[in-house]
Amino acid sequence: MGKFISFEGGEGSGKSTQVKMLADAMNAAGLDVLLTREPGGAEGAEEIRKLLVEGEPDRWDAVTETLLHFAARRDHMEKTVRPALAAGRFVISDRFADSTFAYQGFGHGVAEEFIRALYKFTVGENGPDLTVILDLPVEEGLDRAGKRALDEGNGEDRYERMDVEFHEKLREGFLEIARRDPDRCAVVYAGRSIDDLHQIIMETVASRLELKL
Amino acid sequence: MGKFISFEGGEGSGKSTQVKMLADAMNAAGLDVLLTREPGGAEGAEEIRKLLVEGEPDRWDAVTETLLHFAARRDHMEKTVRPALAAGRFVISDRFADSTFAYQGFGHGVAEEFIRALYKFTVGENGPDLTVILDLPVEEGLDRAGKRALDEGNGEDRYERMDVEFHEKLREGFLEIARRDPDRCAVVYAGRSIDDLHQIIMETVASRLELKL
Repeated sequence: MGKFISFEGGEGSGKSTQVKMLADAMNAAGLDVLLTREPGGAEGAEEIRKLLVEGEPDRWDAVTETLLHFAARRDHMEKTVRPALAAGRFVISDRFADSTFAYQGFGHGVAEEFIRALYKFTVGENGPDLTVILDLPVEEGLDRAGKRALDEGNGEDRYERMDVEFHEKLREGFLEIARRDPDRCAVVYAGRSIDDLHQIIMETVASRLELKL
Repeated sequence: MGKFISFEGGEGSGKSTQVKMLADAMNAAGLDVLLTREPGGAEGAEEIRKLLVEGEPDRWDAVTETLLHFAARRDHMEKTVRPALAAGRFVISDRFADSTFAYQGFGHGVAEEFIRALYKFTVGENGPDLTVILDLPVEEGLDRAGKRALDEGNGEDRYERMDVEFHEKLREGFLEIARRDPDRCAVVYAGRSIDDLHQIIMETVASRLELKL
């Protein structure tokens, strides 16, 4: 069996850049790595992804959204992740189930008991061996993602404050997930240069999974 | 609050004809009836339906399929069924959650505990007041459905192509659901003429929901 690594984090954490750098470095070290993502990562799952990322923001209620994420996740597990792990490959996924716990659970108030039941029956024992959580103070992350209005004090920042509040919940969610499951999760401070962050991620993966990188 | 009536049954039970006849008769009796169907019955749910009814029979594993059905069901509940009931209307749905218990649960072996959890968090207390189960020996139903599939040629015959053994499980599943929940479910033998069956359904709905029809 190979090893399954997931990456999580909020806006502007540099996650997509870092998963690619890690996959390239591991491949260069002679490991067979499959880089994938959620929602998506399999033919059917990518079709479900379209339903999730296209259209109006309020197109689905949070429970429907949770179900669509887990439908896509199950397809991703069955068609992509499990076969790759069974073939002894390393799988790196840009987001996995913790995103649903954070966004739909902590962020939108979907019952954790429900998300846990979904996880149990769709992922079960086949979840990540290591989850790297890229952590960044919300204001800094939103600045990087270019999502924070520069204007201040004009009273017209309702949406920005909602955005900040939501991302605070998200961040707290990911940190809580890490506190509850420290054997699986590694929290890495993401406010570093791309190369420094890559270096720390390499060290984290090597030590947690006992690899030479 | 209005009343929610669902119709269930295997292939060839005449369900789609009967729900239309019932809705017409109830409207003619001065009741305000919304006729809907699953999977589908709302804009988003119909898009999810496409993922379920088109493509290869083995496109999704049974757990993914279950999740897609409940995602569509949640959208159907939120956008169509609950608002109609809240407005005091009668809702008649051609299939509802019992189809998932029967097809994915009894038919494909998805854990009942899982389907129950999905039901609890997506439908909860808003389920049908009455479920009419149209029952027919499998061979007779498949004969009818086989003819129908050939005639319609609309490409939506994925479920009908599955085998007789499967349909036996399905039928047994619906009957078991009715045994467990006799206050909600009414089993009606469907091997009658269209008009006779309509008459019996009218009597069943009138007596169960205490209506004059």
